[in-house]
Amino acid sequence: MSNSRPIGVFDSGIGGLTVVRALSHHLPHENIVYFGDTARVPYGPKSAQVVREYAAQDTDVLLGHDVKMIVIACNTVSAVALDVVQKRAKVPVVGVIFPGAEAAARATMKKRVGIIGTIGTVTSNAYPNALRQIDPAIQTFSRACPLFVPLAEEGWIDHKATELIAKEYLFPLTLEKIDTIVLGCTHYPLLKDVISRVLHQTVTLIDSGEATAGTVSRLLDELDLKNSSKLKPNLQFFVSDVPFKFTEIGEQFLGQKLGKVHRVSGFAA
Amino acid sequence: MSNSRPIGVFDSGIGGLTVVRALSHHLPHENIVYFGDTARVPYGPKSAQVVREYAAQDTDVLLGHDVKMIVIACNTVSAVALDVVQKRAKVPVVGVIFPGAEAAARATMKKRVGIIGTIGTVTSNAYPNALRQIDPAIQTFSRACPLFVPLAEEGWIDHKATELIAKEYLFPLTLEKIDTIVLGCTHYPLLKDVISRVLHQTVTLIDSGEATAGTVSRLLDELDLKNSSKLKPNLQFFVSDVPFKFTEIGEQFLGQKLGKVHRVSGFAA
Repeated sequence: MSNSRPIGVFDSGIGGLTVVRALSHHLPHENIVYFGDTARVPYGPKSAQVVREYAAQDTDVLLGHDVKMIVIACNTVSAVALDVVQKRAKVPVVGVIFPGAEAAARATMKKRVGIIGTIGTVTSNAYPNALRQIDPAIQTFSRACPLFVPLAEEGWIDHKATELIAKEYLFPLTLEKIDTIVLGCTHYPLLKDVISRVLHQTVTLIDSGEATAGTVSRLLDELDLKNSSKLKPNLQFFVSDVPFKFTEIGEQFLGQKLGKVHRVSGFAA
Repeated sequence: MSNSRPIGVFDSGIGGLTVVRALSHHLPHENIVYFGDTARVPYGPKSAQVVREYAAQDTDVLLGHDVKMIVIACNTVSAVALDVVQKRAKVPVVGVIFPGAEAAARATMKKRVGIIGTIGTVTSNAYPNALRQIDPAIQTFSRACPLFVPLAEEGWIDHKATELIAKEYLFPLTLEKIDTIVLGCTHYPLLKDVISRVLHQTVTLIDSGEATAGTVSRLLDELDLKNSSKLKPNLQFFVSDVPFKFTEIGEQFLGQKLGKVHRVSGFAA
């Protein structure tokens, strides 16, 4: 087993590129294979049963690239299908929920944590369960924010309408005196300025993708899987559909040029 | 061939229920089988290639119910995959584009027509092409409005944020002195109040679903396929995933109780 094998990362679509961005920053020598299931995006409003079936197929795409570890960049999949991926993969699997919950537990002083995510993630109670496991004294307050994903994909990251929508979604959380909020969807870091402003800047924002990159780095060390090569790494991007604007908005999520994006066939057939 | 066989209607998801509503109103004795591909919704931002593959599968679901006619309620499918459905089905096929274009051509006095729809529908130029075919003197002005679908699904049909977003999307059309606008997406009729207000109520709104119901009615007469029974018709609803809120928001689209919704398997596998 060569440690130059890539880390596999998958997501329902484009949002997981924020996790790739964090991984590249923390682990600048790791090769990465990314798969976004853009033919069936979004997963957030879909049932756990369907998301579990999709997660199994996404895992197989990455296993086909001989990955040494799988990072589930999608909060919805991490929330409802972590076990599916773990069972299928013979390599270590990291979801974004537990790292995000750990970071939130470290950050909260008042032990009052807000969680925002898709309907699927919020309904699953995955973050509250993880936080309770880490520290039973922590109280959690959840809100689904379904419009944040399309707003981020439309690129309206600092639009007046986005602020109005954020105010409406986040108002109940402002009443709960939270001091920490988990951005429980990979699209939300793009909206962090408006989210922070609406929460009056007194609340610490936890980016689960950032937290996950830290966990991945530690695990690679512990498992002696870190790439010893100091060459420029190879980042490869695969999607099940190449939609309009993928490359354009993808670079905003990734924070650098995307390069060539390959389409994986068989997802619409 | 019995004329009591159902009319088959399909859509990428829930939006096509506005077409079922129009069909039920114009044709109160027709049995209807509806299929919404909620496991893969939305189609609007996806590539024509993927939408064509999905359309073929959706058609097969309806053919399995021995339908006498297929109505493509989805504008995106009607725009990019009408030929796929026609080729596959041995029964008459009606898309929403041509009926919508005909209604717009009848309505416009200044021969200046606006078209709003998904990115897929707008990029296809299906409405401008149809309008040009009907009357080459008509000028068209198109705008994709990607956030209208999630806003309608969220039920924010008359929210201040929706109005701001509508203003931004529709502003370029207000400069073009259009007198008619095609609501080229089945979700948009839910937003017609705000669209009309933003356009200063001087513009005629064309609901392609309504127009399509008229075409279907005429075709059933011409082909002698109208149901002669005057019994209460049977409306059946099938989906590829039962997502959160399906029944709740579905009734808003349909304008009546939905009854039992059946899940068709095999779409996520």
